[in-house]
Amino acid sequence: MSGDANLDRQMSFLKEADRLKSVMRATRLADGSRHENSAEHSWHLTLYALTLADHAPSGVRIERVVRMLILHDLVEIDAGDTPIFGTGSATQDADEQAAADRIFGLLPEAQARDFRELWDEFEAAETPDAVFAKSLDRFQPPTLNLANGGGSWTDYSVEEHQVRARIGLQIERGAPTLWGWLSPRIAAFFAR
Amino acid sequence: MSGDANLDRQMSFLKEADRLKSVMRATRLADGSRHENSAEHSWHLTLYALTLADHAPSGVRIERVVRMLILHDLVEIDAGDTPIFGTGSATQDADEQAAADRIFGLLPEAQARDFRELWDEFEAAETPDAVFAKSLDRFQPPTLNLANGGGSWTDYSVEEHQVRARIGLQIERGAPTLWGWLSPRIAAFFAR
Repeated sequence: MSGDANLDRQMSFLKEADRLKSVMRATRLADGSRHENSAEHSWHLTLYALTLADHAPSGVRIERVVRMLILHDLVEIDAGDTPIFGTGSATQDADEQAAADRIFGLLPEAQARDFRELWDEFEAAETPDAVFAKSLDRFQPPTLNLANGGGSWTDYSVEEHQVRARIGLQIERGAPTLWGWLSPRIAAFFAR
Repeated sequence: MSGDANLDRQMSFLKEADRLKSVMRATRLADGSRHENSAEHSWHLTLYALTLADHAPSGVRIERVVRMLILHDLVEIDAGDTPIFGTGSATQDADEQAAADRIFGLLPEAQARDFRELWDEFEAAETPDAVFAKSLDRFQPPTLNLANGGGSWTDYSVEEHQVRARIGLQIERGAPTLWGWLSPRIAAFFAR
């Protein structure tokens, strides 16, 4: 119906992406009313990036961080969400690579390559932009847990040392002032 | 607990923003399973912006469009979503202005001003960036309606001429090639 084959492929990709709204995460909303899905989580993270840009190390380009965060969870449409305190499947990495092949592969070739490169950069967590993006992805769930009185920490019977081991280093590495805000609040929560 | 009063305000804003995940829209997901909320809608729109950037008129800066789309619905936390085919409340504009005052006002002053200016620019729909952002905001719901077999068109008993009047001009103005894709599909849907 359209003469533009590239646009048809872009529209197929955007329709497939809609399924991210049905991928449920371990984290609950701030009011505790239900679990969060990966699409609204992705939006929330982009807002964290805009709002907390002044806590990014110098050299970080927030518009690239935002792009990464928009794309970062799309693979979960096929591979599912892996809760940070759950036990990941043995094939998780391979599943996510296959998902990236299929989902980004819906796009026109050049754009598929661009999006895939950005997602690969995020996953590798080596560039300053990716390190900051990963820090935000680790920082947001505990802020929701604190807001709703425990959330995934309570559901998974997690202890304070596990929280610090699983997320502390990664947040501190990419966003030290945010870890400085979060760390005493985690201590206070587990001391309650 | 934190010595950084600005960061405390930013964190309050981000917690309040979480409530956008509970604002429900008239539109249903592509699979028709449930209504879409405004947070996941905002994420989907940012992905439309990245994916369809080559359909933006020249001069449009996609990173500004993405910023606008991240922020564009936050006022709905207080003012609610106004379905495009519903009857808006008489106080809608005033409600949204008051919501913007309160919600952006949670942020540190300079940042509150920046975000508010961007939201005002989006609402005014005069700059090229805002016109394109508004076009995407009008373009995404019909693509979901087409995917799920009617959605809000069926729910609101909308006729084709109403769809064209309410969204056609706005999409065509900001993104003519996207309207070229959508228009014959709307025709085919209503001719079914």
